[in-house]
Amino acid sequence: MKVLIAQQNYHIGNFESNKAKMLDAIAKAKDQGADLVVFSELSVCGYPPRDLLEFTDFIEQCEKTVQELAAAADNLGVIVGSPVRNPDAAGKDLLNAALLLYQGEVYGQAFKTLLPNYDVFDEYRYFEPASNWRVIQFRGIKIALTICEDIWNLGDNPLYRICPMDQLIQQGPDLMINISASPFDYDHDKDRAEVVRRNVEKYKVPMIYCNAVGAQTEIVFDGGSMACNVNGEIANTLDFFSEDYSLVDVDELIRPSFPKGKADYLLLNQEMRVTRANDPDSIMQYLTGESNMAQIKEALKLGISDYFSKMGFKKAILGSSGGIDSAVVLTLAVEALGKDNVTALLMPSGFSSSHSVDDAVKLSEHLGNPYHIIPIEAVYDTFLNTLSPLFEGTSFGLAEENLQSRSRGNILMSVANKFGHVLLNTSNKSELATGYGTLYGDMAGGLSILGDLYKTQVFALARFLNLNGELIPGNILTKAPSAELRPNQKDSDSLPDYELLDRILYLYIERRMGPAQIIELGADVALVNRVLKMVNVNEYKRNQFCPVIRVSTKSFGTGRRIPIVAKYLS
Amino acid sequence: MKVLIAQQNYHIGNFESNKAKMLDAIAKAKDQGADLVVFSELSVCGYPPRDLLEFTDFIEQCEKTVQELAAAADNLGVIVGSPVRNPDAAGKDLLNAALLLYQGEVYGQAFKTLLPNYDVFDEYRYFEPASNWRVIQFRGIKIALTICEDIWNLGDNPLYRICPMDQLIQQGPDLMINISASPFDYDHDKDRAEVVRRNVEKYKVPMIYCNAVGAQTEIVFDGGSMACNVNGEIANTLDFFSEDYSLVDVDELIRPSFPKGKADYLLLNQEMRVTRANDPDSIMQYLTGESNMAQIKEALKLGISDYFSKMGFKKAILGSSGGIDSAVVLTLAVEALGKDNVTALLMPSGFSSSHSVDDAVKLSEHLGNPYHIIPIEAVYDTFLNTLSPLFEGTSFGLAEENLQSRSRGNILMSVANKFGHVLLNTSNKSELATGYGTLYGDMAGGLSILGDLYKTQVFALARFLNLNGELIPGNILTKAPSAELRPNQKDSDSLPDYELLDRILYLYIERRMGPAQIIELGADVALVNRVLKMVNVNEYKRNQFCPVIRVSTKSFGTGRRIPIVAKYLS
Repeated sequence: MKVLIAQQNYHIGNFESNKAKMLDAIAKAKDQGADLVVFSELSVCGYPPRDLLEFTDFIEQCEKTVQELAAAADNLGVIVGSPVRNPDAAGKDLLNAALLLYQGEVYGQAFKTLLPNYDVFDEYRYFEPASNWRVIQFRGIKIALTICEDIWNLGDNPLYRICPMDQLIQQGPDLMINISASPFDYDHDKDRAEVVRRNVEKYKVPMIYCNAVGAQTEIVFDGGSMACNVNGEIANTLDFFSEDYSLVDVDELIRPSFPKGKADYLLLNQEMRVTRANDPDSIMQYLTGESNMAQIKEALKLGISDYFSKMGFKKAILGSSGGIDSAVVLTLAVEALGKDNVTALLMPSGFSSSHSVDDAVKLSEHLGNPYHIIPIEAVYDTFLNTLSPLFEGTSFGLAEENLQSRSRGNILMSVANKFGHVLLNTSNKSELATGYGTLYGDMAGGLSILGDLYKTQVFALARFLNLNGELIPGNILTKAPSAELRPNQKDSDSLPDYELLDRILYLYIERRMGPAQIIELGADVALVNRVLKMVNVNEYKRNQFCPVIRVSTKSFGTGRRIPIVAKYLS
Repeated sequence: MKVLIAQQNYHIGNFESNKAKMLDAIAKAKDQGADLVVFSELSVCGYPPRDLLEFTDFIEQCEKTVQELAAAADNLGVIVGSPVRNPDAAGKDLLNAALLLYQGEVYGQAFKTLLPNYDVFDEYRYFEPASNWRVIQFRGIKIALTICEDIWNLGDNPLYRICPMDQLIQQGPDLMINISASPFDYDHDKDRAEVVRRNVEKYKVPMIYCNAVGAQTEIVFDGGSMACNVNGEIANTLDFFSEDYSLVDVDELIRPSFPKGKADYLLLNQEMRVTRANDPDSIMQYLTGESNMAQIKEALKLGISDYFSKMGFKKAILGSSGGIDSAVVLTLAVEALGKDNVTALLMPSGFSSSHSVDDAVKLSEHLGNPYHIIPIEAVYDTFLNTLSPLFEGTSFGLAEENLQSRSRGNILMSVANKFGHVLLNTSNKSELATGYGTLYGDMAGGLSILGDLYKTQVFALARFLNLNGELIPGNILTKAPSAELRPNQKDSDSLPDYELLDRILYLYIERRMGPAQIIELGADVALVNRVLKMVNVNEYKRNQFCPVIRVSTKSFGTGRRIPIVAKYLS
């Protein structure tokens, strides 16, 4: 039996475009003589559909699309992902299904058992878990069909009390097929290959694993679908970060013709996340390592380009300050959208250093994108003059700093509104964590590119982007970070050294350590308390922040839900 | 046996203050000769703690607080709510517990079975459901102890497959005690009394029901705790929207000394939500009814005052435009925070009508709060002048309208930053739904007061606020709504009539109807499609909006999770 793995990029709720893509793949599978084509989880409607699942109308459109795909299947088997209604009156209304379509009908089906409900996932909000399991016999092959998370409990995942493959294996399957929507973070590809391999090892049955690809607002699906033969060797791998197809010979997976150990399989990461080293050097190496940067770059580019193409936008704008954050965003945006589609606004004030404009001009000259210089002094002075009846007798402070930042935000949004651009945000994760940014000012924008990268990671990414020749001027990489909102200001006036800061933030945000644990690892008591307090009191700012392209295991946004009104470590 | 119901207002994560409150109530219970005092769900840490539950440090502080309360209990029984660690290695790490503390120890415990995971709730994200049930014998009374949602499946709730009281009733309990954190919406108090009564009717056992009170960012807990005797009569009721205590005689609940039907019980709403009438008049009556307005007023005041007191703020600021929305927010804020603590900024432009400033001045004169007039023309003109190199040759449009709105937002935030005020947002639900507002402009603010009220409801609330004498000048109530961002602008230039609009929005947002269903109820096809598209394409704006005090069954914010990048009815 031959199976075409179809790794595609879907548009949530765009049934026509998703169907057209799947029909193309069905035609391709027929051309290539495949018996079966496999699509990813919830391929019919796109993943994650979130509360659109609460609309009966939305479910009806899923059902209609499934019928049309079934009609097109003919003698090809077609495995699609779709929400289906729960036939049982008890339990939630919907099931998360993998449907095997064949000769105009639903020939077989499997429902998801393990429903992720952590971080960015909310599946138990919508779906009832499966409570019985059946292998599907197709063309003489007994298929154990599962969905994403279903293969992530090998008996050692404390989130779940059940393991669907333990049930299915009793029916003697020949092949496991898993359809997934498993998102990117800079560890997850290794975890994923490891999980596939461990399932194969445990059940002694090969696996075909079809993942989604493409960015859905903040979540990037990175593809990397694969087939793993019965020896635990990855026999087919599909591209990361782009659509891809691979025709798999199931007989070859079941009875590999090459001897064990000879397959070109992925280098697997044996080290589990929880046992990762906690010493400062290991953490910094983990955060800023070059191989991570290569992946992060691709993930961010896909995040940008899919946001624009799926929203129907073409042109971006951003404030180019001459600093490292905007330089990295501009470089990535130019790569993702094309240099003519990204406009940089340079908005110096009286507090801007002379090199800021020069560095930003040099950057845009390297990249070839349009830029304009719009000084903000007249606007800022008029604001101060307008406010003088109220501000008289007060001294320069945070209000005046924020006023500059918001004047820039206002100019950027005006130009964006006038010419139909989308404002790209340039805040980094260290700033967002500590609240070192101005709401409606430098925190404005439709999409955050660097919001899941700590400042030290932004520097590492900048160095990576310069590896094949200087795009970002050297001066931007070497000068001390500054918001330039008061004379001779430096980030280090308000924030600890970024290496120290980022390590504490990582231990608190990604690793959920409390102050005692972080201090035990060698950080200063007062510093830890100060940093954790900064994180917690600024929840209200992040709550109004735009979506952040997620690249880590714990990004701000939908995956991290902290009360705004609370008093904890604050 | 005598039980003190302690209905208290907790601060999430503020263990010291929560403990102090509970210690006070313990002392009070001892003074009054109670055998048992009952606190609400997760009283130890406050509800909802959300992802703070992922911090081991946070759980340790819960445990420490429980130990301290147990030490104080002595011979009083103390029922508190707290997260506890799941002793079973399989399943999620935590259980949502009701602990009966007695003589320094945990004398009995019950875990929550039905974990709400819809709308604003995410409990399955954190907790493992209970899988066994035991009544607790205390002072000769067998108590069936449950937590909130546990009593909301009477065999007819399709969300759940299990009913914990069906298990507990087999052990012959004398009394049901339910500890809750059940939030307000303008139906929910009636539902709640009905659920308590139906449980009593089904199991023939009286119930003590302790609810939380107080606002937690966007969620308002309205209290209204109660005891229901075995005849299904509500024998004790506690206040709505404030802390309250009531000493209940359990013997009286079990064997009422007055004949059935004589108790002063609440008027119960027999009509289930799903059977609510859909005709235009019924919907408008439902949305704008006077008894709802009385509750909504209290909920919003509590929402405002708790936000300020729990965040440690005292002073608010808002833009007072002379329109209905800002007038209602200002009136509520003055009632909640005191007139000296609410500053109104009147920021006329060249497009403002002459009566706008007059009406706003008159309003503040009625209310007695400070106000300042800050014209924005100079700022607006300077922005236009600064932008002229880019805007030359273009005509006045959305960019210029938004620029005015953002100039006002910038001025409001500057004054807020300078003097430590919090900006109150004045957007209403009709505007937020349709995207009729400017991001970082009139959509700015720390807390939205009216974001869960449609425009027709804002008018109804304004009329209600004027019932005991005119606070809001009559002209504000009668003039046609306008954003005043271009000459002679009216909301009706861009939006349908608000009665038509709000009905469609309600059917789509609260009732999750698709276009076909809404059209079937008599709405115009083109209008429905236009409105639904407006709602869906503006998800990105709402995503950056501040928390909205929730008063309906479906508010924007944490309870409504729609993908930003999607194409559905858009």
